Amino acid sequence: MEPAGPLNVGSVARLCANFGVQELRLVSPRCDPTNSEARRMAVHGIALLEQAKEFSCLLDAVADCHRVVASCGRSDHGDIPLQSPEQALPWLLNSIGSEPVALVFGREDRGLTNNELQLAQRVITLHSSSSYPSLNLSHAVAVVLHELQRCKLQQQLNNEQSASPDPASPRQLDAYLTDAQTLLLEVGFLLEHTAQARMAKVRGLLQRAAVRPQEVALLRGMVRQLRWAIHSRHS
Amino acid sequence: MEPAGPLNVGSVARLCANFGVQELRLVSPRCDPTNSEARRMAVHGIALLEQAKEFSCLLDAVADCHRVVASCGRSDHGDIPLQSPEQALPWLLNSIGSEPVALVFGREDRGLTNNELQLAQRVITLHSSSSYPSLNLSHAVAVVLHELQRCKLQQQLNNEQSASPDPASPRQLDAYLTDAQTLLLEVGFLLEHTAQARMAKVRGLLQRAAVRPQEVALLRGMVRQLRWAIHSRHS
Repeated sequence: MEPAGPLNVGSVARLCANFGVQELRLVSPRCDPTNSEARRMAVHGIALLEQAKEFSCLLDAVADCHRVVASCGRSDHGDIPLQSPEQALPWLLNSIGSEPVALVFGREDRGLTNNELQLAQRVITLHSSSSYPSLNLSHAVAVVLHELQRCKLQQQLNNEQSASPDPASPRQLDAYLTDAQTLLLEVGFLLEHTAQARMAKVRGLLQRAAVRPQEVALLRGMVRQLRWAIHSRHS
Repeated sequence: MEPAGPLNVGSVARLCANFGVQELRLVSPRCDPTNSEARRMAVHGIALLEQAKEFSCLLDAVADCHRVVASCGRSDHGDIPLQSPEQALPWLLNSIGSEPVALVFGREDRGLTNNELQLAQRVITLHSSSSYPSLNLSHAVAVVLHELQRCKLQQQLNNEQSASPDPASPRQLDAYLTDAQTLLLEVGFLLEHTAQARMAKVRGLLQRAAVRPQEVALLRGMVRQLRWAIHSRHS
């Protein structure tokens, strides 16, 4: 949004290349975005710089974007809620497919206005020091693009981990707990008035472990055999 | 290490101020680190720039530092193992107290030599695109300092969470499992040759839940009462 420094524009083009960003869009730049300073900073991001589209207002620039995250320094953002990059960027990533998404950065001197911030669905602020929170524009872009990439890798890792065994179904777990409760009432470990509270503790333990179907089957087998042992000796 | 660009040196001074870094050290700079370009980029980091100490070799620059992490681009680092920032930076943070720690960044054009990388205890590489991994120096510094701050906040959060209940001691857990195994052998649920494998499954479940002392006490109470029920009816 209205960048004034060609060094910054060139640096941002390089960063786009560094982090696989496909397109750079400029809203009313206050400098020549392809002058020699900008080109020098772009290095291998030069193609992105040369192909950067210009727009006359932010709304036009993000018109085709399904998710938009804006970046904000820390002062006078009014009631606009700020999130950390690690809170908002996974949400941006979840939209990635064929639909474009946007990251919006403000002017070097004044950032984005509150009206502009409100065009975005989420607004992030960086973890900089409260005594001097304002980063140079291109350095803020570096931080956010790297964080986006880190979140992407983290999501891939989480997806692999969530391929771990599914936990037991609520029905299976409940059937086991009911069965166990009946036995424990029978042997006098539970009393009618304490049964619910004590079994809730067992339920909490099994929930925390994300107990698996075959484990519930194992536990249920124990209950069955214990019941058999008690009854067979009784008869 | 041997920075050549005053824009970079000034930008890094600003970033130090942005992220609460206390000191900037320069090894054999190939530019005047306090010329007008550097000063212009430093903005409110000007004091750090003016107070930056110069050294003639890297070893002298990090002589008093107890933990040193170096940053590396992705190519030809030989056998030196590379870590992600989120792997190595928490380790750097764990040393923070009265003892200084260091982050080392290389030259704009050639980075750090392998010999220099080997002076650090850990070497990090950023999550940039494999097709163009090399960031501008000051942008790499921005990413690493922000990641350091994010890791610090994450550690504080984890410390708060680890104030959650301590799990049961290995001794208490083992005593319970031995007791349960004896009962389950007695009622014929376990056989001598399957006992170990089946109880290992129970142990795995309880470990995953980080079972708490009072939960183990509850489970042990069940075993006691079940044993009583079996024996009393038997006699």
